[in-house]
Amino acid sequence: MVSEDINASTLFSSRGSKQEIEEGRAFAPKFDADGLIACVVTDAQSGALLMVAHMNAQALERTIESGEAWFYSRSRQALWRKGETSGHVLRVAEVRVDCDQDVLWLRVEQAGAGACHTGRRSCFYRAIVRNGPDTPLTLEFRDDERVFDPAQVYGK
Amino acid sequence: MVSEDINASTLFSSRGSKQEIEEGRAFAPKFDADGLIACVVTDAQSGALLMVAHMNAQALERTIESGEAWFYSRSRQALWRKGETSGHVLRVAEVRVDCDQDVLWLRVEQAGAGACHTGRRSCFYRAIVRNGPDTPLTLEFRDDERVFDPAQVYGK
Repeated sequence: MVSEDINASTLFSSRGSKQEIEEGRAFAPKFDADGLIACVVTDAQSGALLMVAHMNAQALERTIESGEAWFYSRSRQALWRKGETSGHVLRVAEVRVDCDQDVLWLRVEQAGAGACHTGRRSCFYRAIVRNGPDTPLTLEFRDDERVFDPAQVYGK
Repeated sequence: MVSEDINASTLFSSRGSKQEIEEGRAFAPKFDADGLIACVVTDAQSGALLMVAHMNAQALERTIESGEAWFYSRSRQALWRKGETSGHVLRVAEVRVDCDQDVLWLRVEQAGAGACHTGRRSCFYRAIVRNGPDTPLTLEFRDDERVFDPAQVYGK
């Protein structure tokens, strides 16, 4: 169950000194000017990089309280429970924070086939290829197998 | 060697349709309002998440041209060759881009001991611990062994 009246100040600490932020035990996340923090999501079993998304304070609170990943969609400007349409929920095994506490790392177990809305397991299915100086870079598809049909999952 | 007169427009393509961005072979990175793109850095051998940093167009060009990771420091507002002080250069094995081309993933080989300026292998050496409802979250140190002495590497 997700409580609606979580007060951010009860879960998050205020930002202290550089020493406190980097070496302390208080969780004092730094949200950017838009109130967002970046989240790297990896598969807790395989370690594979699945996706990168953003959370606002509310999404972070709901993730912590529910154990399932919530994000904030910048394009839709809305709180977003990952899997709410696809059913591909991400169960959170561990949340880590980086040295300056402005990036989160979620290690997750996937309830569904893939994390990417294109139907792939991961959003990172293309590598950059260099074609020589002053020549446009191109992309090569790698690990791009589709594990679900997005048209069927999301509708047309 | 890093060429100083790289023209961004010769390496990067302009943003096309959603279909072209997600399923195409043109590399059309999306820089944010500050001209930056987020980069997830993992160890190419172990797969471990090392750090997250940002690049501007120039840092990305230099990374592609030199095969070593360059970033843009938001706090110092300066282009930054990773390892320029510590010697802990990151050699780039592969660069991938995500579905909407607004995040990069660098798979790197580390020339030095650790990626984090605190002396750890990774910046993500603390996990969030829940202490019950309406109670401040705390951090627990995990994988936090120091692999170099930051005072010695960076000076006091």
